[in-house]
Amino acid sequence: MAKKYVYFFGGRKAEGKPSQKMVLGGKGVGLAEMTNIGLPVPPGFTVSTTACGEYYENGRKWPSGLKKQVQAQLAKLEKLTGKKLGDPNDPLLVSVRSGAALSMPGMMETILNLGLNDKSVEGQAEKTNNRRFAYDGYRRFIMMYASTAMGLSKEEFESAFDQFKETVVAKRLKRKKGESVLDTEVTGDELKQLCEELKAKYKKMVGKPFPQNPWAQLEGSINAVFNSWMADKAVTYRRVEKISENEVCGTAVNICTMVFGNKGETSGTGVAFTRDPNSGKNEFYGDYLFNAQGEDVVAGIRTPVKLAELQKKNKKVYNQLLKVRSKLEKHNKDMQDLEFTVDEGTLYMLQTRRGKRTPAATFKIAYDMVREGLITEQEAVSRITPDDIERLFYPEIDTSISRQDLSDALLTVGVNAVPGAAAGKIYFSATVAETAANNGERVILVRKETSPEDVGGMHAARGILTQTGGKTSHAAVVARGWGKCCIVGCEHLEIDYKNKKMSVKGTVLQEGDFLTLNGSSGDVYKGEFPLIDPRLPKEYTQIMKWADKFRTVSVRTNADTPEDAGKAIEMGAEGIGLCRTEHMFFDTQERIDAIREMIVAETIEARIKALEKLRPFQRDDFAGIFKAMKGYPVTIRLIDPPLHEFVPHDDKGQRDLAKKIGVPYTKVKQRVELLHEFNPMLGHRGCRLAITYPEILDMQVRAILEAACIVTKKNIKVKPEIMIPLTMAGRELEILSERVRKVANSVLKENKLSKSKIPYLIGTMIEIPRAALTADKIAETAEFFSFGTNDLTQTTMGLSRDDSGRFLPDYVDEKKAGIFKNDPFQVLDQEGVGQLVKLGIKKGRSTKKNLKIGICGEHGGELESVKFCVRIGMNYVSCSPYRVPIARLAAAQQGIADSK
Amino acid sequence: MAKKYVYFFGGRKAEGKPSQKMVLGGKGVGLAEMTNIGLPVPPGFTVSTTACGEYYENGRKWPSGLKKQVQAQLAKLEKLTGKKLGDPNDPLLVSVRSGAALSMPGMMETILNLGLNDKSVEGQAEKTNNRRFAYDGYRRFIMMYASTAMGLSKEEFESAFDQFKETVVAKRLKRKKGESVLDTEVTGDELKQLCEELKAKYKKMVGKPFPQNPWAQLEGSINAVFNSWMADKAVTYRRVEKISENEVCGTAVNICTMVFGNKGETSGTGVAFTRDPNSGKNEFYGDYLFNAQGEDVVAGIRTPVKLAELQKKNKKVYNQLLKVRSKLEKHNKDMQDLEFTVDEGTLYMLQTRRGKRTPAATFKIAYDMVREGLITEQEAVSRITPDDIERLFYPEIDTSISRQDLSDALLTVGVNAVPGAAAGKIYFSATVAETAANNGERVILVRKETSPEDVGGMHAARGILTQTGGKTSHAAVVARGWGKCCIVGCEHLEIDYKNKKMSVKGTVLQEGDFLTLNGSSGDVYKGEFPLIDPRLPKEYTQIMKWADKFRTVSVRTNADTPEDAGKAIEMGAEGIGLCRTEHMFFDTQERIDAIREMIVAETIEARIKALEKLRPFQRDDFAGIFKAMKGYPVTIRLIDPPLHEFVPHDDKGQRDLAKKIGVPYTKVKQRVELLHEFNPMLGHRGCRLAITYPEILDMQVRAILEAACIVTKKNIKVKPEIMIPLTMAGRELEILSERVRKVANSVLKENKLSKSKIPYLIGTMIEIPRAALTADKIAETAEFFSFGTNDLTQTTMGLSRDDSGRFLPDYVDEKKAGIFKNDPFQVLDQEGVGQLVKLGIKKGRSTKKNLKIGICGEHGGELESVKFCVRIGMNYVSCSPYRVPIARLAAAQQGIADSK
Repeated sequence: MAKKYVYFFGGRKAEGKPSQKMVLGGKGVGLAEMTNIGLPVPPGFTVSTTACGEYYENGRKWPSGLKKQVQAQLAKLEKLTGKKLGDPNDPLLVSVRSGAALSMPGMMETILNLGLNDKSVEGQAEKTNNRRFAYDGYRRFIMMYASTAMGLSKEEFESAFDQFKETVVAKRLKRKKGESVLDTEVTGDELKQLCEELKAKYKKMVGKPFPQNPWAQLEGSINAVFNSWMADKAVTYRRVEKISENEVCGTAVNICTMVFGNKGETSGTGVAFTRDPNSGKNEFYGDYLFNAQGEDVVAGIRTPVKLAELQKKNKKVYNQLLKVRSKLEKHNKDMQDLEFTVDEGTLYMLQTRRGKRTPAATFKIAYDMVREGLITEQEAVSRITPDDIERLFYPEIDTSISRQDLSDALLTVGVNAVPGAAAGKIYFSATVAETAANNGERVILVRKETSPEDVGGMHAARGILTQTGGKTSHAAVVARGWGKCCIVGCEHLEIDYKNKKMSVKGTVLQEGDFLTLNGSSGDVYKGEFPLIDPRLPKEYTQIMKWADKFRTVSVRTNADTPEDAGKAIEMGAEGIGLCRTEHMFFDTQERIDAIREMIVAETIEARIKALEKLRPFQRDDFAGIFKAMKGYPVTIRLIDPPLHEFVPHDDKGQRDLAKKIGVPYTKVKQRVELLHEFNPMLGHRGCRLAITYPEILDMQVRAILEAACIVTKKNIKVKPEIMIPLTMAGRELEILSERVRKVANSVLKENKLSKSKIPYLIGTMIEIPRAALTADKIAETAEFFSFGTNDLTQTTMGLSRDDSGRFLPDYVDEKKAGIFKNDPFQVLDQEGVGQLVKLGIKKGRSTKKNLKIGICGEHGGELESVKFCVRIGMNYVSCSPYRVPIARLAAAQQGIADSK
Repeated sequence: MAKKYVYFFGGRKAEGKPSQKMVLGGKGVGLAEMTNIGLPVPPGFTVSTTACGEYYENGRKWPSGLKKQVQAQLAKLEKLTGKKLGDPNDPLLVSVRSGAALSMPGMMETILNLGLNDKSVEGQAEKTNNRRFAYDGYRRFIMMYASTAMGLSKEEFESAFDQFKETVVAKRLKRKKGESVLDTEVTGDELKQLCEELKAKYKKMVGKPFPQNPWAQLEGSINAVFNSWMADKAVTYRRVEKISENEVCGTAVNICTMVFGNKGETSGTGVAFTRDPNSGKNEFYGDYLFNAQGEDVVAGIRTPVKLAELQKKNKKVYNQLLKVRSKLEKHNKDMQDLEFTVDEGTLYMLQTRRGKRTPAATFKIAYDMVREGLITEQEAVSRITPDDIERLFYPEIDTSISRQDLSDALLTVGVNAVPGAAAGKIYFSATVAETAANNGERVILVRKETSPEDVGGMHAARGILTQTGGKTSHAAVVARGWGKCCIVGCEHLEIDYKNKKMSVKGTVLQEGDFLTLNGSSGDVYKGEFPLIDPRLPKEYTQIMKWADKFRTVSVRTNADTPEDAGKAIEMGAEGIGLCRTEHMFFDTQERIDAIREMIVAETIEARIKALEKLRPFQRDDFAGIFKAMKGYPVTIRLIDPPLHEFVPHDDKGQRDLAKKIGVPYTKVKQRVELLHEFNPMLGHRGCRLAITYPEILDMQVRAILEAACIVTKKNIKVKPEIMIPLTMAGRELEILSERVRKVANSVLKENKLSKSKIPYLIGTMIEIPRAALTADKIAETAEFFSFGTNDLTQTTMGLSRDDSGRFLPDYVDEKKAGIFKNDPFQVLDQEGVGQLVKLGIKKGRSTKKNLKIGICGEHGGELESVKFCVRIGMNYVSCSPYRVPIARLAAAQQGIADSK
């Protein structure tokens, strides 16, 4: 049997099946479906996406058999309608529309009235008894064919029409110069004359006359749709949306019998949503234009009326439409976006597809549909996307601001690191920003890059803007943890710290000037725009409750403060998977002085003395977090960054420190110099610090257990999990675990508490390849594993997060190298890094069958990565508080998929 | 059956077997062997190393059964000798000696004359009819037992003896004050009196009387040997030599019937080597002392005579000794180091073991023994060590310089990065050093650290000394490639570039002062010591020829110049496994200017223009190397380091560059700033540069193929292998390979040559974990793999070579953390990194069954690593020229092992 390329629909029956969306395209499958369930669809046929794919494989030639099939289906259509394409007496007219499998703007849209030519237009005029209507149709067809099928300048033809009106028609109407002529004032005969002029123009531009043969018209239009698949903007769109050429091979082409909304007041055209796409309310919602074609609605030339007007004027059609609405929702089990035309009182459905909606509407509709019995709870959960959730939580620039105003204020575009919006006064110093914020100002912190020392100012700021860095730079990671609007890698930004100003392509802003950031898009605007706050619909809460039922793994959060911990619990976290202890060192001057004193110390005694100053702070911090976590497990990572991140690198800072701690300046300077590393990422950090300076570990473990004892004595359950970072060998963890246990048990003893009362665990991060490769050995000691996939990605791929911004975009850009589908720091590289994660789990569990395993990298809050973690058998995922709902969703969706 | 702890030897029969060295210790097995082959060994028994191990497991208590077994064997010995321990009439006397399985200095040596007490000494006097002899033995026993078994101060007892001589004996002899008394002048009675004094001193110091019970003496002595196993210096020695506690569990104890070399002129004691340990000549070689005990030889109190004297004075014994020599060599198939005693004309053998020898002797002896039919060629090859080879090739400080002179001149000790010695004037700038060397000076380059810009000066210098870095720092790696003496990580060094001086703990040296380096030990000496040059014995060449027969993999070299290539061929290399192209860019000012111009270029045209300046240089370099390699394959790695390594980082350099290439200074400065990376090791380097700037790849490939064409036209075969560094994904290599192929083929076409004439290959380095993990995908394109285990170690372990010096020593130091047995940058980490190498090979060959695979990291010249590479199926190893013989040896030894 020959390959089927063309699928017929009409006469209440269609060849296409609901499952064939990839073959028929979205529009094609909608038409077939509507036909099959008995809705009034003008008959026609769909040329498959496969045909388009093979067209390209053949070097832009139709695959063999396609022509025959199109001809056969056309014959069938002619038989069904009783009309013939190009018939000089009563011609069949068709529309030709593209329709890809995935919604994909940028391709050729529509050609209407195909089948008209110099002869059939006369037949059409006679048959409809409306010469003006027939020739207006011909005029439109010529213009559309010329511009969309042949790629000629649309403006050229439109200005020809305008000129015709200004000369011929205006003269007849005796208009004064400057007085305009309406389209409707042009007569049939004048339109005929215009058509001649347009055809002449066409011939001049193309070198061939306008095709009179309807088959040539059809063939040309189909080719035009095929060709638009590879038009620049379509290719760009697919690239930006990461739609691979392997997933979708081409666009389908829909050929559909013409119906006319422009035959007078009993005709019209409309678009509708089966529910309100803004609120999600179960109310029919749409626009209607009397006496108009669909393109007029889209073009926005005339202002449409609400559907209520149709109800008033044509109750029969409106009621019919209501039935269609209900039928389509029941059939598709989702809110639909409809296009329809009323041709002299008869309703025709031209399109149905899933309706776009606001995040709030997404939740309301899904929830309502479960209540209505249309879908199951599982289906409701499965159709929520991370984007739906994220957009619920972030403020945005007031949607009433006009695009033009925004466009005028746009300064530059950076990397959209954390979504949401922020507006305020700019400051270039974290300290100054913090003071300003304390004085009640709304602040935007602008930095070349941020470092742990800036954390205070970052926290105080409404939004953060940096010149360098990617989505996983320090600024981005820290801001994401707080859900704080952040734009990074703003390369055109030049910052002059000394003179407290920044400039972008000539525009200079001083400290205190206003800036508005759109972290969702990366847009940076001059001035302060009003923002609107997020509101959580109650349906969100309900659906997330359902999601939690379907989850098989728990969701924890990465949080370093009681505030973050509290926020995360609100977001649904069931524990802390990563509490970084080093941020605590920057909290106050006293703390940072103490850690610096510790670093500069030359003897173990001096080091311990400095550490002892830090211990009460750490203890209180931990106690606060334990309290906030109300008995949930709290995984605390021991100090991780290299020590040079804590010391002052400037001369003044070093002199100040020397003075403060009573050590010669040269000693401080020398120590700082000694701490410099060529590749700090691979340097003296993580548990390597504890191997060299076990007294740091002692202090931290003591602080953790002391805090646990204090909180336990207040009758709050505490489950501390002490996590050792950057382990690379079993023996290394063994040595450190012994030390941790020794200190921990002695604190318990001092407090007359037992391990059964505070069941602390000792585990490790698996974040360098060797740890995964020797996980069997490491599991001999470890009581849990937490995969640190940020660092594991860096080491497995040999990629520095901080530096990869220079070349990684090329690797992800399909138009350039296109080596990776996603930025591996955002979406876990399952092929490479994922292999090590799987191996680590397998080896770890080969030693300890029930080893508790989680993830605490940025990937722990990313949809596909979380699903992967669930599939390979992790027990929990952990992510920043604002990503907790996404992780819950992803885990639920994988749980639902696995239960099938 | 109870566990056997004690092994008897005597009466021409021994219980120990040759295979039991780990149980009996080296000395014990030698005694057993000699007994078994009929040599005259005084009978005795050996307490096994196992007993010592269990002694420690039991908390320093004898394992059950040991006492019974020692008693039983003692009874057997008493029966055989017809004497009894402690017999007041004719006592059995024994010696007690430690004897570990591996030669291990630092443990308790010897206790002689055990069995003497206040009564038996009289019996001994009577029986030997020599009161003086008997009491001198008792005196020695008391002193040895006190110092070696009880750990009392040896000086204390010796000064008691001296004082006795100065007072009692001198008085009797009427000596004047200051006139010395010889030991032999002390009479038997006086010695008896002395013994009383010594015993009193013993009692005072220990709190208990000197043991009179011979069993208590024996038990105490055995315990003393056991305890010495854990003495500080023994533990330190094992740590330094990386002898793990798992390999050897303790020391054996040898109890042996006393024989006496100090019974007059027919008695004596000697040590001998069965061949000359310096030259390796087949000549009997040794020292003899008439009328002396073994300890007198070792102590160096009296000057021994050559064996020829013994031959003259006691031909019978000498001839007997010659027979022993021949019997032992035949039996042990190796040159032996012997100890013997002649007791009133009767020869007794006390020890035999493998004799230490010079590297030259090692080769001569092995070669001669093959010629003599004693061993096979395989055995000869298997007994050579890398150290034997290395020491052949390097100059050393003249061995006639006294230890005292060296000790006086010692400034400090650094990390011994490359062995050999160097002496010359110090310079702190590579450029100045180069000029000085060109003026004929011997130069030592002293730097804080070296960078690629220093390569000229490094090459010109005799030796290199740096303040920072480990064995795989830039300085060490580059110097090793040239076999140039290098000491790194000299932490006490302070260098003042500005004032051209250095200081070490107060000693200041100016530019031009002399320094001598011993790269083998890491010692740095003030002043210039004479050096002696290496000489290669002809037996070396012969044995390496044999080695090449047993090899199953080929050995290539890492070489970047025709000189290095030529040197490597001399050393036996069969190709270049790694030719780094970036060193070439530093060769002349013209080149470095061109590459800098390329880096600063803002347009692709400007970049290509600059690259075109470099192309002729690269082409000529490659042509030179191809010629030198005479048809062997040459693997050329495309540019690898990040571009910031090429640009000037100082203001002046940037201004000069700006002027030279006609670009504003600010542009140059800005570009250099942009190139800064936080973790350059994981940054924009390797093939990532070629993805961003494919024109660099184009230039290099063109230069390679043009050179190949030029050399081919001169009728020299050329086999270029183009190697792409830092690949992390199959698609990445695919893109770059296509580009390489396109350029290469077009050069071939221009030159009217075909690929069959120049069969170039395109392959890749596997040097980041992801490459190994996805090697199956990469092998779809790659024509060969070369494992870059330097970088693979860095990424797999998350360890920066340049920074790890701060903490890695703790990881390798068994006394500290002891996590790794070896520095993973020196010896391949088979457990971790090795897993990825194995996986990469497996996956690569799953795609291409016969994929050619090699290694080109530093490990390619290290014994155990090379053996591992051979075992896991690599086709070749590649290392620096001076390590080629070691790689050949290692490959041969593994080949021999595998053929068994």
